[in-house]
Amino acid sequence: MWLFSNNDAPIGSERYFKYIFSYVNEQGQPRSRVFDSELRELQVLITSTDPECDAYPSLKTDESYQLEVDQLKSVLKASNVWGALRGLETFSQLVYEDDYGVNNINKTSILDYPRFSHRGILLDTSRHYLPLKVILANLEVMAMNKFNVFHWHIVDDSSFPFLSRTFPNLSQQGAYHPYTHVYTPVDVKSVIEFARMRGIRVIAEFDTPGHTQSWGKGQTDLLTPCYSGSSPSGTFGPVNPILNSTYDFMTSFFKEISSVFADAYIHLGGDEVDFSCWKSNPDIQKFMEQQGFGQDYSKLESYYIQRLLDIVSSTKKGYMVWQEVFDNEVKLKGDTQIHVWKMNPQYQDEMARVTAAGFHTLLSSPWYLNRISYGQDWQDIYRVDPQSFNGTPEQKKLVIGGEACLWGEYVDATNLTPRLWPRASAVAERLWSDENVKDIGSAYSRLEKHRCHMVRRGIPAEPLFVGHCGHEYSGL
Amino acid sequence: MWLFSNNDAPIGSERYFKYIFSYVNEQGQPRSRVFDSELRELQVLITSTDPECDAYPSLKTDESYQLEVDQLKSVLKASNVWGALRGLETFSQLVYEDDYGVNNINKTSILDYPRFSHRGILLDTSRHYLPLKVILANLEVMAMNKFNVFHWHIVDDSSFPFLSRTFPNLSQQGAYHPYTHVYTPVDVKSVIEFARMRGIRVIAEFDTPGHTQSWGKGQTDLLTPCYSGSSPSGTFGPVNPILNSTYDFMTSFFKEISSVFADAYIHLGGDEVDFSCWKSNPDIQKFMEQQGFGQDYSKLESYYIQRLLDIVSSTKKGYMVWQEVFDNEVKLKGDTQIHVWKMNPQYQDEMARVTAAGFHTLLSSPWYLNRISYGQDWQDIYRVDPQSFNGTPEQKKLVIGGEACLWGEYVDATNLTPRLWPRASAVAERLWSDENVKDIGSAYSRLEKHRCHMVRRGIPAEPLFVGHCGHEYSGL
Repeated sequence: MWLFSNNDAPIGSERYFKYIFSYVNEQGQPRSRVFDSELRELQVLITSTDPECDAYPSLKTDESYQLEVDQLKSVLKASNVWGALRGLETFSQLVYEDDYGVNNINKTSILDYPRFSHRGILLDTSRHYLPLKVILANLEVMAMNKFNVFHWHIVDDSSFPFLSRTFPNLSQQGAYHPYTHVYTPVDVKSVIEFARMRGIRVIAEFDTPGHTQSWGKGQTDLLTPCYSGSSPSGTFGPVNPILNSTYDFMTSFFKEISSVFADAYIHLGGDEVDFSCWKSNPDIQKFMEQQGFGQDYSKLESYYIQRLLDIVSSTKKGYMVWQEVFDNEVKLKGDTQIHVWKMNPQYQDEMARVTAAGFHTLLSSPWYLNRISYGQDWQDIYRVDPQSFNGTPEQKKLVIGGEACLWGEYVDATNLTPRLWPRASAVAERLWSDENVKDIGSAYSRLEKHRCHMVRRGIPAEPLFVGHCGHEYSGL
Repeated sequence: MWLFSNNDAPIGSERYFKYIFSYVNEQGQPRSRVFDSELRELQVLITSTDPECDAYPSLKTDESYQLEVDQLKSVLKASNVWGALRGLETFSQLVYEDDYGVNNINKTSILDYPRFSHRGILLDTSRHYLPLKVILANLEVMAMNKFNVFHWHIVDDSSFPFLSRTFPNLSQQGAYHPYTHVYTPVDVKSVIEFARMRGIRVIAEFDTPGHTQSWGKGQTDLLTPCYSGSSPSGTFGPVNPILNSTYDFMTSFFKEISSVFADAYIHLGGDEVDFSCWKSNPDIQKFMEQQGFGQDYSKLESYYIQRLLDIVSSTKKGYMVWQEVFDNEVKLKGDTQIHVWKMNPQYQDEMARVTAAGFHTLLSSPWYLNRISYGQDWQDIYRVDPQSFNGTPEQKKLVIGGEACLWGEYVDATNLTPRLWPRASAVAERLWSDENVKDIGSAYSRLEKHRCHMVRRGIPAEPLFVGHCGHEYSGL
């Protein structure tokens, strides 16, 4: 069987050939005899005049495809390469091995497209450093699950592994180790290209003004000095919002970021700002007075965020922010995406408020997959629907999707993959399939089979419950 | 530096040489210059006339050792090879790499021995099949943590992967797959020998009369037919205790088991017997009447267990049983070990009752490591003390130790290692170190360092909390 009918094999053809047929050699040569009913060829047709081979996927990308599997010849039709990639994944999952080791595929006709256009996974490379290999492997699994956004929470309080060309001191001082625990420009480039080849956007998050302890190690005067009584305590708080030097730094820094990361969006964070340090600092107090902020430090936060957004806007990037930025009534561009992550207040109410204000939104609150519990917790994950809140059809349309988040407090290369998969596959189906696809029993059957698919491809996706795969995981 | 002073390198010398020095080549040749303060040699002295090189470790094994690390020559002294193995592990953990990649060890003097003689890990190969490689890797990690018992819960309701020479049909019909999901006699032998080389006993559990659904597939008439009204329902319950054929089968089966597994003890299970099927069966009802058991089905259970224990006793093996067997007042040999696993009633009360009756006991209740929760659950694991119950010093002495259990409902090769380690390391320290070693803060520091040791040796032991290792895990 030939996977492609001409020599212009699109992105991913080699990968899927391997997924489907790499096991043939284990069992000796494929049979030479061709049965009448044998599938000989998968023809891949890109119908658009611009197949987008050299482009990056975006929020507007058309990922739909049509797949006709029939005798001798099958056809996969898509408008562009991104839809073709999704179709190849489906095709590869339809191939199954019978008891004699022969590959089979059933006759079928599929018209498929995603329900939501933003289907993401957040990985946190600050609390623990994740080697490049782990990130790439995760992108590979994301493609197997038709995820299309890698939200890279690249730096945070604990460490600053991003090697900035403009401010190399940030990682030199702020990474766990300046050489072994950093992402070089080449690393970042390879992540972005590896993701692109799988139809995955890479959205980097540089969270400020909170969650920035590691930034302060390599950048003097960036963070607010906290005071104990009338003298500095030696500790530091959030980014110092009252200095011009802060905004000069952010201008240079985000200029670099906007050119390093190709995606049209940057995630600017903005969550969980602790006001106690700002409150302790006499210079901040004086500034608050001058600005007429009274004792309302969320106004100071908004002041900072507002200036930051202006800086980032000037780079022509769109931005995503965590829900607090909206909650604190910062003035936002119309195309801003509000990322809902809190469980309290109820996320359904937050989604209603955000969309009532006319903003695009995406959901993560019930999908913090770092949180674990004993048993089949994938069921609760699966039952969530991002559009189940009180709102008009117009409001519902503003929901662009969601993200499964794997925060890194207890996760590194040793346990990331089995902790994330196949639990994130439950999120993947929710974000891709029609809203009426929600029966738990049939979802279990699909998930169980799909997790064995992943295991067969060498991915240590953990079991859902008692049972076995035909081919068990063979690593450690 | 030479690890051994003569050519008669004991068990484990090659392994520990690799652990300590395999990284040298990564960094080029070791320096040729020898400093005055350089350690050249570790002399290993076995003081007993019988080093036990060809024996198996047992409950009575002396694992104590003395280690003197000093300039030029260090000495590890132990009564036998088992103590020497523990000492080699300690020595290898004392070696640390400085910033220039040079191996160092500090001058020290250690006299060390375990608090408890039974320090086990239970793995369940029935709910999920664990490939041989995973079992061996786990034995390797057990040795790094000075565990000395592998409790192999080898069969259960879900599957029967043990290939019996006497009753090959048990795995042929009862395993998930008769060829790929079984443990052959050669497999079992290699597990036992691999464990022996690390000073680890292998105690197999063949749990009856409950937890035996998989046995029934390959052995007709072994299980009790359940009734629905006056006719058989087609389902089966626990082992049928009223047929002579049952005891004939058990006699042959345990004769094989007692020769396959070298250890002096067999674990006979005896937990969670569900009486509903027995109650439904008219033949069982008649038997109950004949025996004068009334409606007390625990008497029938005891009747079965009693006959089983007599069978196993005749093989000259000792036995371990789960606590129900004691609770139901089955007559037990004096050397029976009662395995406490329930959380309700309180395990402390059960330990008190068991030891008051003069039986040896071991604890697992608070160490069901398959149960997971978000956060640093190792702390609760660590705080447990198996001897903290109301009882006399004589009663306390009857506590032989404990076992960390990793039941297999949600665990297979994909997630076993990070789920078990380093959480089981907290159990390991509790069972080895003095009862006064219990400060959580210092335990955290040791555990964190120890987990990086394991990671350095290629073991995907998960992180305790935010942080990093000098050398991160490089697998998937």
